Amino acid sequence: MRDVYVVGAGQSKYGAFPDESYRSLFETAYESALDSAGGIDPGDIDEAVVGSLGVGGRQLGLSGPAVTEHVGLHGVPCSRIENACAASGYAVRQAVQAVKSGMADVALAGGYEVMTDMSGDVAKYWLGVSGETEWERLTGTTFSGVYAQMASAYIDAYDASPDHFSKVAVKNHANGAKNPKAHLGFTCSFDDARDAPVVADPLNLYHCCPTSDGAAAVIVASEEFAEKCDDAVRVAGVGAASERVGLFQRDSYTSIRSTEEAANTAYEMAGVGPDDIDFAEVHDCFAIAELLAYEDLGFCERGEAPNLIDRGVTELDGDLPVNPSGGLKSKGHPIGATGAGQVVEAFSQLTGQAGDRQIEGANVGLTHNVGGSGGAAVVHVLEGGVL
Amino acid sequence: MRDVYVVGAGQSKYGAFPDESYRSLFETAYESALDSAGGIDPGDIDEAVVGSLGVGGRQLGLSGPAVTEHVGLHGVPCSRIENACAASGYAVRQAVQAVKSGMADVALAGGYEVMTDMSGDVAKYWLGVSGETEWERLTGTTFSGVYAQMASAYIDAYDASPDHFSKVAVKNHANGAKNPKAHLGFTCSFDDARDAPVVADPLNLYHCCPTSDGAAAVIVASEEFAEKCDDAVRVAGVGAASERVGLFQRDSYTSIRSTEEAANTAYEMAGVGPDDIDFAEVHDCFAIAELLAYEDLGFCERGEAPNLIDRGVTELDGDLPVNPSGGLKSKGHPIGATGAGQVVEAFSQLTGQAGDRQIEGANVGLTHNVGGSGGAAVVHVLEGGVL
Repeated sequence: MRDVYVVGAGQSKYGAFPDESYRSLFETAYESALDSAGGIDPGDIDEAVVGSLGVGGRQLGLSGPAVTEHVGLHGVPCSRIENACAASGYAVRQAVQAVKSGMADVALAGGYEVMTDMSGDVAKYWLGVSGETEWERLTGTTFSGVYAQMASAYIDAYDASPDHFSKVAVKNHANGAKNPKAHLGFTCSFDDARDAPVVADPLNLYHCCPTSDGAAAVIVASEEFAEKCDDAVRVAGVGAASERVGLFQRDSYTSIRSTEEAANTAYEMAGVGPDDIDFAEVHDCFAIAELLAYEDLGFCERGEAPNLIDRGVTELDGDLPVNPSGGLKSKGHPIGATGAGQVVEAFSQLTGQAGDRQIEGANVGLTHNVGGSGGAAVVHVLEGGVL
Repeated sequence: MRDVYVVGAGQSKYGAFPDESYRSLFETAYESALDSAGGIDPGDIDEAVVGSLGVGGRQLGLSGPAVTEHVGLHGVPCSRIENACAASGYAVRQAVQAVKSGMADVALAGGYEVMTDMSGDVAKYWLGVSGETEWERLTGTTFSGVYAQMASAYIDAYDASPDHFSKVAVKNHANGAKNPKAHLGFTCSFDDARDAPVVADPLNLYHCCPTSDGAAAVIVASEEFAEKCDDAVRVAGVGAASERVGLFQRDSYTSIRSTEEAANTAYEMAGVGPDDIDFAEVHDCFAIAELLAYEDLGFCERGEAPNLIDRGVTELDGDLPVNPSGGLKSKGHPIGATGAGQVVEAFSQLTGQAGDRQIEGANVGLTHNVGGSGGAAVVHVLEGGVL
């Protein structure tokens, strides 16, 4: 199995951009990825995978070729991958497989979503299509509702309260305020977060990520190609797993099994464990999801996530910074872009280009991207300073 | 690059099935593929890729995990791939990459679509979403209209007439009448085909494929695993390419460049040429598409496709049978199932299980799956009798 490296990564700003299109956002991300790769020749790219849920129904079919033709990648094999909010995390994984297979030497993985140009009801429809259809979506259960059930179950099971969700928000906004690409790049106080209006009890507005427009792109390559590049981050481990799409069909509401299995696969492939991780970008679509991720990824024991956030372990200057980018909460969550965008942050951190939010001495980073409420999950372990 | 084999393949009947769902159809295809693989243990499957356009908006997000959980493949990494009508051709390719990468040993690739339970206008919307949005779909151009432009251009350029399209229909219906899985499994006369009502001049009803419900599934595996299986067909070559999504942006209306490039890649990888192909399943969504495929795949020179059909070369008992299954025209076209379904036919032919439509002595088969009017294309070269 040949080694694969991330040799370039870039993204658009995340936010609400009425003057942009999915094509222009993807182009910005692509050009940024190329720039970060020291201007490699686009002609070297021999595979492309684009993640998107297709929110809004824009070019719902063939949108992979539609965005790659827009950036001038004519002819390159390209497909769209969809796994709800994990679309482009899976796109990165698929690009890694393409290079490992020997069928490609340099592969582009990216994603995009445009979500802010529609009414609330239309947005709710498009967000809801990733929920289990018959017994969740069509009975009126939104994703806020699904995660609220998980939050309630967690509070019942462990020594946790909504204040811990608020602390996640404060931390991620503090990080996002240092990220010029963040959608909600402002700090918030604990009082702000605690006293926000309820969305789905026990989750309030500050416990939920925004809907965003944005795009991200990552270039992965074989070791031989990577040796010629300015920067290269090794894809040491890749793991993915599925879980029942509907929450009601699962054994546990206080863990996401697909995350656990994906992480175990990625750790095994990388030959590392949770203790070796220097920082992580995790899927905090709701604050409870970040706490579950701490446990599912093995950063702490079951029920210990509130303790981790209380002690500041996962803050930017803590022992294990989580979501240095600001996470989905503050950086934003343009569905199809999110997974690739996490790899963009990891690449920046591992190549010392993360500016005000740079984590000193970071060598091993982890990215964690979830589809739906855990129907799909994908984890990457990335290692800097190898080549 | 390690060798990959198809070790099992099956499909549902294609047709209009008001009593079935996308889940039940997928289950039928999956069970059929397992049966054809001599009952391999589903626990051996360590990757799944599902192709679907999502017609009708059923479980539009996370439908990959939704169908694999239905068949009991819990936990297995699964994603949905979308490339319009080439979705599951690309799914097969992705499964091949997964096994070649070493990240999987046994991978399931399948696809499904349910298309017949909606009104004509709704179906037209869902079929149209793979067209170029701004200048084709939103200006009222349907796929029949796009292919009619290609047909007109072809008739202008070469010695061809709508009668050649009718001959394609007669041939494919003759084959489909021998296929118990075919949607329109009846023969038609040349007069039937010639005198059918116009859909988009010069294409009439018999020059267009139906919309169908159906599913298909293929199991691919490493050589080591394949050696233990009852049947194994080598995936000798795989090629894919993109092309401008909108027809109006292309240099030629009388060829599909993505098909040419995909075929060239697949031939090169397999170390064969068009002359080595014993039979082919090609993407005859419209009769003109089959004629273009003859030329783009290198079966004849430019402008010679009408001659090929006139001489009966591509009939079941000809020198190079094309669409022994009946093709999209007679077997049917459940969008997301079509590409994998072509591989099902090739597997049947290469393992001597094609019943009344068995091609004697067939050792090398080709499958050709197109998305939209050529925005994506994928070609597989499959070889029997290797293991």
